[in-house]
Amino acid sequence: MDAEIISVGTEIVLGQIVNTNAPFLARQLGTLGITADRQLAIPDRQELMVASIRTAWQRSPLVFVCGGLGPTADDVTLAAVAQALGVKLTVDSDHWRWIQGTFAQRHQPMMPENIQQAKCLTGGEPLANSVGLALGSWYEHDGHRLVVLPGPPREFVPMVTGEVMPRLAKIVGQRVQITSRTLNFFGRSESQLMDEIADVTADLSGVMITSYVQPDAIQVRMTVRNQPRAAANHLLDTAQARIVKEEAPYFFGVGDDCRLAAVVVDQLRDRGWRLTAAESLTGGMFQSTICSVPGASNVFDGGFVTYAARAKEELLGIDHQVIAEHGVVSAQTAAQMAERSRQRLGVQVGLGFTGVAGPDSLEGQPAGTVWVGLAISGQPTTTRLLHLGAYRGRQAVRQWSVQAGLQMLYRALQK
Amino acid sequence: MDAEIISVGTEIVLGQIVNTNAPFLARQLGTLGITADRQLAIPDRQELMVASIRTAWQRSPLVFVCGGLGPTADDVTLAAVAQALGVKLTVDSDHWRWIQGTFAQRHQPMMPENIQQAKCLTGGEPLANSVGLALGSWYEHDGHRLVVLPGPPREFVPMVTGEVMPRLAKIVGQRVQITSRTLNFFGRSESQLMDEIADVTADLSGVMITSYVQPDAIQVRMTVRNQPRAAANHLLDTAQARIVKEEAPYFFGVGDDCRLAAVVVDQLRDRGWRLTAAESLTGGMFQSTICSVPGASNVFDGGFVTYAARAKEELLGIDHQVIAEHGVVSAQTAAQMAERSRQRLGVQVGLGFTGVAGPDSLEGQPAGTVWVGLAISGQPTTTRLLHLGAYRGRQAVRQWSVQAGLQMLYRALQK
Repeated sequence: MDAEIISVGTEIVLGQIVNTNAPFLARQLGTLGITADRQLAIPDRQELMVASIRTAWQRSPLVFVCGGLGPTADDVTLAAVAQALGVKLTVDSDHWRWIQGTFAQRHQPMMPENIQQAKCLTGGEPLANSVGLALGSWYEHDGHRLVVLPGPPREFVPMVTGEVMPRLAKIVGQRVQITSRTLNFFGRSESQLMDEIADVTADLSGVMITSYVQPDAIQVRMTVRNQPRAAANHLLDTAQARIVKEEAPYFFGVGDDCRLAAVVVDQLRDRGWRLTAAESLTGGMFQSTICSVPGASNVFDGGFVTYAARAKEELLGIDHQVIAEHGVVSAQTAAQMAERSRQRLGVQVGLGFTGVAGPDSLEGQPAGTVWVGLAISGQPTTTRLLHLGAYRGRQAVRQWSVQAGLQMLYRALQK
Repeated sequence: MDAEIISVGTEIVLGQIVNTNAPFLARQLGTLGITADRQLAIPDRQELMVASIRTAWQRSPLVFVCGGLGPTADDVTLAAVAQALGVKLTVDSDHWRWIQGTFAQRHQPMMPENIQQAKCLTGGEPLANSVGLALGSWYEHDGHRLVVLPGPPREFVPMVTGEVMPRLAKIVGQRVQITSRTLNFFGRSESQLMDEIADVTADLSGVMITSYVQPDAIQVRMTVRNQPRAAANHLLDTAQARIVKEEAPYFFGVGDDCRLAAVVVDQLRDRGWRLTAAESLTGGMFQSTICSVPGASNVFDGGFVTYAARAKEELLGIDHQVIAEHGVVSAQTAAQMAERSRQRLGVQVGLGFTGVAGPDSLEGQPAGTVWVGLAISGQPTTTRLLHLGAYRGRQAVRQWSVQAGLQMLYRALQK
């Protein structure tokens, strides 16, 4: 099936923001064998929107209109869609009550225009928004389908995966059988990873393999088309076994939503272990990442941010001598941070992070030089030296340090 | 002048790469007062390209066709443009000699198809490529202009700035003067903020005002067109003064890159103050946000993550009695976390964060209920109760708590 995507937003058209929704949707559609051959971005000017939507609606069996569902005066998407299709808008009274309740819970006054966000196309089906106020809309007529989606990516993404994809899968279900599986890796360059994967899967021509770089992982998606489920899964099992064998040190889990922090929290909980950390360059980001996992309290009580040498000595009791002799960016300091934090909290696992986030160098070490220490009760403390690409900036160095620490712990938990 | 941008590439349409060329070009055009109201992405299928280019060429005075100038079989952009416009292609013999020389110098064999990259539209003007092999093309007929540009951003960007913009500037004559300024707010809903701003700027018709929601701020951009710089700035000053007066509690700075954490770090440094924190639900995110600012070491040594009640008591010495009597999610606990962390580090400012990140409720308090405490040396400790929209998820509740803490401190520093 061919599709068209219309992205609405003056800030997109002026180049003030980069449109990431359309490529995300296109990748999702691709897994169902649907190609969006025309992808248009236009400003939120109603007459231009009406003309563009009408053309797409007449021409294509599936049209997406994305953005412009907010409560302000320049959010005219629903009105434009209604005009283009010649249908009216209705207030979804359940959703309107929910919006009112939400404002009450937040002790915020309602604006009269917030009722906009409870509207959807008459004769259509509202699409639930799990993280925002505005409803999406799904409308069908005469073999044509039009889907209205919100603009903010954090609302757009879950509505696509949670509401749109299941409906589309039902529609194309009989036509194209798509079986896919995502493998997650960290710590390898994308080109190297994909080269090596291509080598070990060269003879598996039925498996299409694509990669997608996330801030905290490289996701490798394997897709098999037009095969019965059992045969497809057998093919995916074969490919997965070869890939995981080749890339064992970098692999950490299966699934689109698999996150290394969540895997580590699960494995610690299964062992009945708790962890803590002492963080210098990461400044609390490791512990915050652990706390981003629901149920973190099963494995984490608290820990330390020791940014300055003074805090390392005062809060953790790091030997002044160690810092004076080896520097704060050293294996010795990282190891002591891990050990002392573990001892102070009386838990099984402690991590220490120290390094140069940049932009400036420190103690003669260039930005991107990072030591991670890992202390586990009853085991010798280990350390790892990272040379991260500082040209990507301070935040990336800190994020990769956190992921490298999670990876060290993950590997230790496999033993 | 209105323009259209057509981006060609199957990898764009499949979502395998994000199109950054179109927003770059749009921003460049904006400085000349040119708006690209239709921005289309299509795959490199010749018949679809011909149809799309022909429609744009008939409709608009300025059309850009970007990508598909390589030497391989799927690079059919020039052929499609030639067909749509009804013109032929010519080999630019100077450029062809230069390509041949380049291959010789690199000791690389020439491919016969490399001659594609020396072609341009007959009757048009070749555009020099400073970093790649393919020529661009500039073609004019009957008041319409069509510009062909290469796809790789490292070739695209210099061709736009070096070849296209000077030609367009001559055509548009005087550069249309665009003067804009961004104001940053936190803690107000977008709809409420924009309603109130519309009220106080209703008579300033020369100022266009748009809003854009960032995870940590609402950015309000004011734009004035076609006014001499001094007059435009006077208008922006007037608008800014009224808006900031109306929204004083929520305003924190001017500029696209203005971040509340950086503003707070600057102001603390100016006073010679240092800060620390004790974090429960935020789990280190506040301190990590402070450390994301280069130069954070001027105001921050370290602090505490006290996720469990046990850590609050052991690391900070929070009275067991206080937690037992008031609960961990209480003004009293938040205040003691702020005070004790401040005292332990011996610094001027301490913050305490405690609350319910969700998804579950805690101590009978719903997810989204958060207390922030602020202790400043020599001042009475203050606390603030937040009711955050828990429907947005655990991460958003934690992020907003961090921003609310920064805002509390920012306001205290204004006094």
